[in-house]
Amino acid sequence: MTAEERLLAIEEIKKLKARYFRYLDTKNWVALESVFAPDAAFDMRSGRGDMLDPDALLAGAVAIVSFIRASVEDVVTVHHGHMPEVDIRSDTMAEGIWAMEDVLRWPTTSTRPIQTLHGYGHYHETYELIGGGWRIKTLKLTRLRVLTE
Amino acid sequence: MTAEERLLAIEEIKKLKARYFRYLDTKNWVALESVFAPDAAFDMRSGRGDMLDPDALLAGAVAIVSFIRASVEDVVTVHHGHMPEVDIRSDTMAEGIWAMEDVLRWPTTSTRPIQTLHGYGHYHETYELIGGGWRIKTLKLTRLRVLTE
Amino acid sequence: MTAEERLLAIEEIKKLKARYFRYLDTKNWVALESVFAPDAAFDMRSGRGDMLDPDALLAGAVAIVSFIRASVEDVVTVHHGHMPEVDIRSDTMAEGIWAMEDVLRWPTTSTRPIQTLHGYGHYHETYELIGGGWRIKTLKLTRLRVLTE
Repeated sequence: MTAEERLLAIEEIKKLKARYFRYLDTKNWVALESVFAPDAAFDMRSGRGDMLDPDALLAGAVAIVSFIRASVEDVVTVHHGHMPEVDIRSDTMAEGIWAMEDVLRWPTTSTRPIQTLHGYGHYHETYELIGGGWRIKTLKLTRLRVLTE
Repeated sequence: MTAEERLLAIEEIKKLKARYFRYLDTKNWVALESVFAPDAAFDMRSGRGDMLDPDALLAGAVAIVSFIRASVEDVVTVHHGHMPEVDIRSDTMAEGIWAMEDVLRWPTTSTRPIQTLHGYGHYHETYELIGGGWRIKTLKLTRLRVLTE
Repeated sequence: MTAEERLLAIEEIKKLKARYFRYLDTKNWVALESVFAPDAAFDMRSGRGDMLDPDALLAGAVAIVSFIRASVEDVVTVHHGHMPEVDIRSDTMAEGIWAMEDVLRWPTTSTRPIQTLHGYGHYHETYELIGGGWRIKTLKLTRLRVLTE
């Protein structure tokens, strides 16, 4: 790639990740699936931070969105990404790291032991160019801190 | 526009929005007016989130800054933008979406029913190139969540 | 510089600042030193916000990292940057402003008078190109608000 093509790809990947967050928080599940490669993998086993959830190692865009939807469909969620470090590795592959913060509030009718989660961490990701558009290929969430109440 | 011109315009618009936030939180009202097109429109009727404020549909840079100034001149405010999705639509028009978080604390002498506001949402915006510089043309604020105390 | 070279430099400086935050919060002290020019200067005298700390005017990458390490080695920290305004001033010098938020929690065994700090402010920075890579040359932290408990 030329330098200009790399800059364009980096900007596209930043917008891709922005759509991931926006579709997630506005509960647009159909659109959310479109940001992932069909064979994407999401390791959010440390998502809640307090223990490793073995069920949260997900394979495929359909499974990822199904898991997210089941987890937060009735939850008011805010997810923000910060400080991207995107590197283009080839014409069709890229890597990225993002700082993140998430704030979740379960409905007051929930019988879950926790009602709110406020977390901080990083996404470690790869991206693939598929059919002219960048998609999220792999994601792994690591945590700096998680507060639950 | 060429690809390079689009990249330059996107970076300029990101810096424009950065100045909007910085001038707002540092209470630089004269500079704040300069980020808006003279005929800008700001729909922040859902700004407080708990009800629709019909007075918060503002027309013109002067009216926008007057409203903001009257609302928060004595309030410690923090406004952060995240995850821009900027699209250049023509040589002189562009669109953008930003995730946002705001934290407001009214002075302890205030007699308002609420003393703090902590909100999350999105800005939906358009931009216009005027005299060689990008300006905010329209803004609409939508909310994911607002906590008041 | 050409427009393309400026865009590349801006992206490099954004990634430089991302590494600063990531190395700081993941306590990678060796890597953290690499983001600073050897003769960097960091004015974080208003870092805690409640008083001016004269000891927090630091000269040199080694002294900066030593101070940061001594201050937060046992502290869970989250530092996020937002809304960069980066301007390339010459082939080897640049300036930048960033909004910031930081959340610190001292260990429960700490005997400090404060256990948590949650702050908001801006970084005012300069950057220098050294040996083909951008480094942070000067930083000054200003505060909008600091909450301590």
